[in-house]
Amino acid sequence: MTQLSQALEGIITPEMGAVAQDEGMDPEILRQKIAAGRAVIPKNRGRDFLFVKGIGEGLRTKVNANLGTSAEHADVDEEIVKLQVAVASGADSVMDLSTGGDLEAIRTAILEKSCVMVGTVPIYGAAARLMQQDKQIVQMTADGLFEEIERQCRQGIDYITVHCGITRRSLEVLERTPRVAGIVSRGGSILALWMKHHRKENPLYEHYDRLLEIAYEYDVTLSLGDGLRPGAIADAGDRAQFEELVTLGDLARRAKARGVQAMIEGPGHVPLDQVQANIQMEKTICDGAPFYVLGPLTTDVAPGYDHITSAIGGAIAAAAGADFLCYVTPAEHLRLPTVAEVREGVFAARIAAHSGDLAKGIPGAADWDRKMSQARAALDWEGMYSLAMDGDLARSKRRQSEAYDQIVCTMCGKLCSINMGKGT
Amino acid sequence: MTQLSQALEGIITPEMGAVAQDEGMDPEILRQKIAAGRAVIPKNRGRDFLFVKGIGEGLRTKVNANLGTSAEHADVDEEIVKLQVAVASGADSVMDLSTGGDLEAIRTAILEKSCVMVGTVPIYGAAARLMQQDKQIVQMTADGLFEEIERQCRQGIDYITVHCGITRRSLEVLERTPRVAGIVSRGGSILALWMKHHRKENPLYEHYDRLLEIAYEYDVTLSLGDGLRPGAIADAGDRAQFEELVTLGDLARRAKARGVQAMIEGPGHVPLDQVQANIQMEKTICDGAPFYVLGPLTTDVAPGYDHITSAIGGAIAAAAGADFLCYVTPAEHLRLPTVAEVREGVFAARIAAHSGDLAKGIPGAADWDRKMSQARAALDWEGMYSLAMDGDLARSKRRQSEAYDQIVCTMCGKLCSINMGKGT
Repeated sequence: MTQLSQALEGIITPEMGAVAQDEGMDPEILRQKIAAGRAVIPKNRGRDFLFVKGIGEGLRTKVNANLGTSAEHADVDEEIVKLQVAVASGADSVMDLSTGGDLEAIRTAILEKSCVMVGTVPIYGAAARLMQQDKQIVQMTADGLFEEIERQCRQGIDYITVHCGITRRSLEVLERTPRVAGIVSRGGSILALWMKHHRKENPLYEHYDRLLEIAYEYDVTLSLGDGLRPGAIADAGDRAQFEELVTLGDLARRAKARGVQAMIEGPGHVPLDQVQANIQMEKTICDGAPFYVLGPLTTDVAPGYDHITSAIGGAIAAAAGADFLCYVTPAEHLRLPTVAEVREGVFAARIAAHSGDLAKGIPGAADWDRKMSQARAALDWEGMYSLAMDGDLARSKRRQSEAYDQIVCTMCGKLCSINMGKGT
Repeated sequence: MTQLSQALEGIITPEMGAVAQDEGMDPEILRQKIAAGRAVIPKNRGRDFLFVKGIGEGLRTKVNANLGTSAEHADVDEEIVKLQVAVASGADSVMDLSTGGDLEAIRTAILEKSCVMVGTVPIYGAAARLMQQDKQIVQMTADGLFEEIERQCRQGIDYITVHCGITRRSLEVLERTPRVAGIVSRGGSILALWMKHHRKENPLYEHYDRLLEIAYEYDVTLSLGDGLRPGAIADAGDRAQFEELVTLGDLARRAKARGVQAMIEGPGHVPLDQVQANIQMEKTICDGAPFYVLGPLTTDVAPGYDHITSAIGGAIAAAAGADFLCYVTPAEHLRLPTVAEVREGVFAARIAAHSGDLAKGIPGAADWDRKMSQARAALDWEGMYSLAMDGDLARSKRRQSEAYDQIVCTMCGKLCSINMGKGT
């Protein structure tokens, strides 16, 4: 049985208890949200890890950090350091998106060491395996893809991205839709390439019930990928994107009917004034299924700073009801991130998530800011460091200044407004 | 005559011509906006500089970088380097907020070297002068303050922040309003301290006509400061803040009647869901006067990353109609920024401004993103660097990677969705 099927039978599982405690929420309320498909607890039945988290309506917005190698850059040890840094920086989840090196070894190492949920995109493994055998991607078979999915689920992966919404119909819509950047999803591109070559339907769509059986067996949460997400501001909100979303809504409903937990993935590159609408449409079309967004980036023109463009879009998305933010690092659009950039990406996404939580009124969110501001008003620097999201950075920045041992800082010095206010 | 008084007489000045060309706007439309008090061109009559910019309705959102020393950290040469870096990074304006060292020398150097508008907060100079003479701030006189203002206007400052909205009435409201962080504006704190000590009205409010005469003479734009802006999420949108805004709206109207250009300053620390309302209230209360916001920061808890928290709030503010963003650097709340942090702050604010411009439909804004995405879709790396907001950073990040000389990047390598898409 899965978390969902148990919730539907009125059972509050130990995982629900732990998540409810983490959120400060009544376990029965959480059970109802899971039963309604409005929250998920991604956790493979065969895996145990320390920080089990819930994702969905009324819960704190969670943050995922992407890890993983490519053929051009593959170092298991570096990925483990990135995992450590991501979790120490507060990531609630990691995804292993490796496509280079010994994929089994990397996945095994991340699963063994991760104390947070681990997601993958199994089609990457299937495609990389072919490439490592000097085969073409179009030589992939439906059976080969499902075997890869089952292998990873058996290995203990907690959630998988599956681009089931790329259909012959959605590709037809895409062909009639002028786009600047076409398909920017790797999984989406692989499937589109395969479908066009073979003139066949997407096996993940055609054999969706087979996918549901595997997911049910291991209680792996499906993250229904948005293979047609816009990859340019100019492409945002087009017919192809929403044609796919309609299909994903349908597939989310079928997952729920089979007792399989599901969330929906979302864009991408979206101008600021369209972000809220994206969230609202997902929530209505997909019956309130948790929404997992990549960004959104509110402009295309700032490579090197895409942790900031995604923090803008992610914060607005979270405030509007997005439940799960995939971080974007400063290396996005340029290369794989360094360890330092993984850290920057997690903190930027956490700022977005918390800004959203304040706005959507998550219980307890405002208390944190109040305590920080109380420490600030008291010029209690140790208090500020301990309350800061990244106390180490705050302390080290202040330590570089001449006024480190004073009550004020070098910005205002004796003209510190707070210190002046104390004198009145 | 000022830009405003000439606009009211139907004259299109050379400055209006230059700004209209910069914005791709009909000069007559710009003249009408200036005549209506909905746009300003901050430029002292006695000063010439290369990049004259307009601020207001329908114009691109502009970015200011704060420079300046404190008693604890005062180095003229460093401030000049910060000025160079700020302008090279795309700042439209700088403010000299110095309160330490030889203030006259620093201001003179910045005015001589700056090719963008320069603003100041003259009360800082008045207060710092007293402190350098070992006097108390309460020994400031109304005449002394006005002499400092006139001295700086004569020197060529283009716009000045004046906290005219701190009144006995607004301080009474503040006393009845429970706040976590009290007054966090330096100028506001100085005036409140003085007013409480002397039990007198704010001289900048009481003798506002005297201020208008000085501003008119030099065509210095007034930036009506928000001395009671919230400095904590818990304090956002309280009665004290809006009591002051009502006064500022009244003062903006009086400035316009006297032919003096004016803009309004805004918060501060504001939760995401209140940002849009702040802009809308300012625009209605102040008859559409340009809005100059500091942040807003959408959470208090991320010192060390406040360029990101302010990019979130600034982008939403700009999208909702804010016209001018004051940058916030990663050093905010900790110390004065380094040169590198000035650079980071300017780019973060520019990302916010441009994200806002895309959303509010500033003509030409979307073309930039379209061109960038076209270069991206063509895997034209040189094109991407030349279109990137910070091409140097984008190039240097990519140069660190193994795939620097390949058409793809190390994130996806052979599984590059764009490269795969080309094959279909």
